[in-house]
Amino acid sequence: MYNIAMFGAGRIGKIHAANIHAHPKCRVAAVVDPFEYAANALATSVDAIVGTVEGVMTDENIHVVFICSATDTHAELIELASKHGKAIFCEKPIDLSLDRVNRCLEIVSSHGALLMVGFNRRFDPNISAMREHYESGVIGKAESLTIISRDPSPPPVSYVEVSGGMFRDMTIHDFDMARFMMGEDVVSVSAHGGNLIDAEIGEAGDVDTAVVVLEFASGALVTIINSRRSGYGYDQRLEFHGSKGLLRVNNVKESELDMFSADSCESSLPMHFFLERYKEAYRIELQHFVDVLDGNADLTCTGEDGKKALELAEAALLSMSTNKKVSL
Amino acid sequence: MYNIAMFGAGRIGKIHAANIHAHPKCRVAAVVDPFEYAANALATSVDAIVGTVEGVMTDENIHVVFICSATDTHAELIELASKHGKAIFCEKPIDLSLDRVNRCLEIVSSHGALLMVGFNRRFDPNISAMREHYESGVIGKAESLTIISRDPSPPPVSYVEVSGGMFRDMTIHDFDMARFMMGEDVVSVSAHGGNLIDAEIGEAGDVDTAVVVLEFASGALVTIINSRRSGYGYDQRLEFHGSKGLLRVNNVKESELDMFSADSCESSLPMHFFLERYKEAYRIELQHFVDVLDGNADLTCTGEDGKKALELAEAALLSMSTNKKVSL
Amino acid sequence: MYNIAMFGAGRIGKIHAANIHAHPKCRVAAVVDPFEYAANALATSVDAIVGTVEGVMTDENIHVVFICSATDTHAELIELASKHGKAIFCEKPIDLSLDRVNRCLEIVSSHGALLMVGFNRRFDPNISAMREHYESGVIGKAESLTIISRDPSPPPVSYVEVSGGMFRDMTIHDFDMARFMMGEDVVSVSAHGGNLIDAEIGEAGDVDTAVVVLEFASGALVTIINSRRSGYGYDQRLEFHGSKGLLRVNNVKESELDMFSADSCESSLPMHFFLERYKEAYRIELQHFVDVLDGNADLTCTGEDGKKALELAEAALLSMSTNKKVSL
Amino acid sequence: MYNIAMFGAGRIGKIHAANIHAHPKCRVAAVVDPFEYAANALATSVDAIVGTVEGVMTDENIHVVFICSATDTHAELIELASKHGKAIFCEKPIDLSLDRVNRCLEIVSSHGALLMVGFNRRFDPNISAMREHYESGVIGKAESLTIISRDPSPPPVSYVEVSGGMFRDMTIHDFDMARFMMGEDVVSVSAHGGNLIDAEIGEAGDVDTAVVVLEFASGALVTIINSRRSGYGYDQRLEFHGSKGLLRVNNVKESELDMFSADSCESSLPMHFFLERYKEAYRIELQHFVDVLDGNADLTCTGEDGKKALELAEAALLSMSTNKKVSL
Repeated sequence: MYNIAMFGAGRIGKIHAANIHAHPKCRVAAVVDPFEYAANALATSVDAIVGTVEGVMTDENIHVVFICSATDTHAELIELASKHGKAIFCEKPIDLSLDRVNRCLEIVSSHGALLMVGFNRRFDPNISAMREHYESGVIGKAESLTIISRDPSPPPVSYVEVSGGMFRDMTIHDFDMARFMMGEDVVSVSAHGGNLIDAEIGEAGDVDTAVVVLEFASGALVTIINSRRSGYGYDQRLEFHGSKGLLRVNNVKESELDMFSADSCESSLPMHFFLERYKEAYRIELQHFVDVLDGNADLTCTGEDGKKALELAEAALLSMSTNKKVSL
Repeated sequence: MYNIAMFGAGRIGKIHAANIHAHPKCRVAAVVDPFEYAANALATSVDAIVGTVEGVMTDENIHVVFICSATDTHAELIELASKHGKAIFCEKPIDLSLDRVNRCLEIVSSHGALLMVGFNRRFDPNISAMREHYESGVIGKAESLTIISRDPSPPPVSYVEVSGGMFRDMTIHDFDMARFMMGEDVVSVSAHGGNLIDAEIGEAGDVDTAVVVLEFASGALVTIINSRRSGYGYDQRLEFHGSKGLLRVNNVKESELDMFSADSCESSLPMHFFLERYKEAYRIELQHFVDVLDGNADLTCTGEDGKKALELAEAALLSMSTNKKVSL
Repeated sequence: MYNIAMFGAGRIGKIHAANIHAHPKCRVAAVVDPFEYAANALATSVDAIVGTVEGVMTDENIHVVFICSATDTHAELIELASKHGKAIFCEKPIDLSLDRVNRCLEIVSSHGALLMVGFNRRFDPNISAMREHYESGVIGKAESLTIISRDPSPPPVSYVEVSGGMFRDMTIHDFDMARFMMGEDVVSVSAHGGNLIDAEIGEAGDVDTAVVVLEFASGALVTIINSRRSGYGYDQRLEFHGSKGLLRVNNVKESELDMFSADSCESSLPMHFFLERYKEAYRIELQHFVDVLDGNADLTCTGEDGKKALELAEAALLSMSTNKKVSL
Repeated sequence: MYNIAMFGAGRIGKIHAANIHAHPKCRVAAVVDPFEYAANALATSVDAIVGTVEGVMTDENIHVVFICSATDTHAELIELASKHGKAIFCEKPIDLSLDRVNRCLEIVSSHGALLMVGFNRRFDPNISAMREHYESGVIGKAESLTIISRDPSPPPVSYVEVSGGMFRDMTIHDFDMARFMMGEDVVSVSAHGGNLIDAEIGEAGDVDTAVVVLEFASGALVTIINSRRSGYGYDQRLEFHGSKGLLRVNNVKESELDMFSADSCESSLPMHFFLERYKEAYRIELQHFVDVLDGNADLTCTGEDGKKALELAEAALLSMSTNKKVSL
């Protein structure tokens, strides 16, 4: 039984806590959150105590920490947990600054700590099935991958301002997806963006619509198409074109109910957002982490993966500001 | 917290036990099964004790029984539980004999017991969405409903022999579905069947392929298309045609991964069988039962519903043997 | 070059005339229609003359007649054309009376005339592909076939009154489709119908909604689901279930344009009616007739096929009125 | 009746000739092709004579020329036809050299000649329906358009060598499509390409896989994804994302026949190539040209459109060679 401390009692902390609670090999031992009310509520729902950073880190009965707190606390909590010998699951990103990430990963490494970064999409059964099919050779050699990723609606500007910008905040998932799916190194990044949805996002210095093209060592091209607003739900699709065929991951719909009427043939909308769309992915992600803890699997989402995705985001920003392809 | 005793530690008992265990308002208190090994294994997995029929029935701390044991024990366990004041969830069917069902329901009624019969499909989110859309009037007045229901592969003949035959065992779900969806009474049944899949099923006196047509009081027609073997997974579809349009529930696929190659465009198969296809339905079914226990919902799957579905199965058998439409 | 006389300048006559005109081996030589204006208009559009029954039948330069006139003229025109040595294409039905059909076919036979009956659906590329796939063995042995056939909107009662009723007028296509697809004999018919759409249709003694079940010699079951009104276009689908799998013909949509919005994911409606849906089928039907005339193909839609479909319609009427399965 | 001379009796010339022959207001008067056998064969099939450039150009009874000959003859034939007062339909491209195109268009303009360039896709019913829906405002303001365009298999290197390269030969359709759909000006082009399919194509100095991003005046982004080899047929899809929703044009399938088996759920492949996929588009394109000739429509595919598409191809080549975004 793994005793796990949960840092952060917000939306994403609650998901992980519920999955941990339902897992036969795990329990939530403590919840830590600066908002007492939130910490209490979550702790109660999973039979845990409310703890403090200090208390949790020095508690030898706690084997694992889940870092689901505010982004600007991630690196410090990772470092603390590394020093105290905990296994660490951290939601993306490690930090918005590449320098800070580098320093943090050095500390992780020097303590030999186990660090998993939460790129949840890798664990979606549709997406991992695409990866497995590609690896099995059914579509032959990779030629081009298209990743469509659109959020249902734009975040408030207050969020945009502390998010590190769309590339570091949202596209970072797609950068990781591109690396995960291709299984090889990016050699150049070319980014194009615009502010088409909400003028306040532009005034905050960010874009809300983007197309990023990545070239890989083999010559294969990955195209990422992003928007902060789909209008019709969470648009999460992939198309992987190879020398022998094409694999496609469609949106997951809210239901399999169709309606034909005199006006139209309607099917249901894509699932609304990541909590619904990646519900199963979060469960499988936890199972993977447990398998790693058990010594039965190799970690697939490392700190290095978190760093590489951030590097791509930085390259994309440079490309967009210089109108040039940026080599890596 | 509802303390629940589970009768039956087989495939379906395990599903309900896991859902009860995960439900914040319920716990599995005891497991009863003639196979000691199975009882122990299930009890351990949900922190319950192994009990006996006598012990459970007389235990005042047990509020609810779940009857997931062999079909021929259902009626007696329902009667016992009624007498001991338990709330009862019973997997379909109550019994294979309509006489026995009638006697059982009289006892339930005389004790004022709460009895829910487990017609799981009513709780599938796609199917209940169809019912809600129909009730909302979007397709107007009901005209014809088509229910396609095919199992992936035929059961062993040893099962067929004790099953009561395909109409009582398998089509019974579709009879209930027809009643649930239409919300009105059946006035006639016309059944057609054949033995096309496995000659041993025919030798056991049963059919493996059938088409049943039900006429309802409003004149609407329901067609049930059954097979014991689809070959491609669990084929569970509905089409509801009304005066203003059509509602359709498609199969739920194993994944949203498609593949295009030089030979074909492939999508994934339907989910394999009821455990996968109705996984979510079982959870929602439990929640409905809890809502009823809490006094927050009216029971939707009563003993009467179980009896009516069995009556339709008997009428179908009579129709098939006489080559006539049977009026009810 | 085949010189063809067209009887009937209505909706269906115009389609055949345009296809004949575009065919490199055929020309429309004459158009015959009691409505002078219609005859003239059609003749002009295809460079033909307006003729008379007598004139056309005795003209040795006319090799072929297409009978697309009113149903009650079909049998007499077939007989006349047989006597004058013409090859004959006749729209379904030969006649609404089985006796009349029998007498007509005897005359056809005694003159050794070539008679093709226009069951257009056999030539639809999707439907003929289903038949070819079935024959190739990919779904194994036939077990059940479902034919959904719904017109977009009910005909006027004046039409219903002279149509011979829905089974002889509309379901007759599905009876032929069942025979075509199965390639074996029907052994029983069981029909169910209702008057749900338009009370005037019921007052005229007809049904507008029906389910017909056919049993075939092999035990396979065919279910025909009919409605005079779909609301959403021409609903023409087939599902053929065999021992190894399922073949399905979907509706053909008006376009491949989809729209996702905040309210729904919409695709386009099915093509509106038979003129659009079977446009290509009419062209292929003509090509088949030319292939037969050229001696390069065996006729696939004979007078016998027309008669057998009518026999099934009569059996369905008997079944519906007696509430019994009718053996053939 | 328009008398039309056809230059070029190859694959595309045959399509146009057949459509002209079937059109009630047009006839093919003459066919001109350096290959006598091809010219004769096509002329015979449409009741035309075989002509010469000189003869056709000076024949006052010929009102229209269709230029479907080799690319390097287009500009000269356009100029000749302009001087002789013919209306001109010319297959894309006008020429592979932008200078040559400019000179040619000046001559067209100085003679006030009517010149339509054959961008067939604009006339595909699915694509024109997308454009009409966009114009109607249903998806709001344009944000991003994705054009997927893949040929079934790469051309021979001998063709690649004279094609002007993939951007001028194949992507040119997508450049025109982007302009057609957006209805506004391109402000920058950023192109990425690779040689992944056939090494000989690379040796000939060309790419076979490409992603091109266009920025428009409004800030909207268009992404073109190209490949010379799909493996599964002609991949021709569009997705147009706007402020209120998404429009999508799917591939057109060979049939609406699906097959479910133990291994997979298969639907049919996309239509094989442009002759099948755009069969209807060619007919509608001709009708548009006739409407323009009749004075009933404004020309939608002008010489200017041909030139603009070529300019985008040149900008893409420059972008690819300099690794920079090219402003227009």
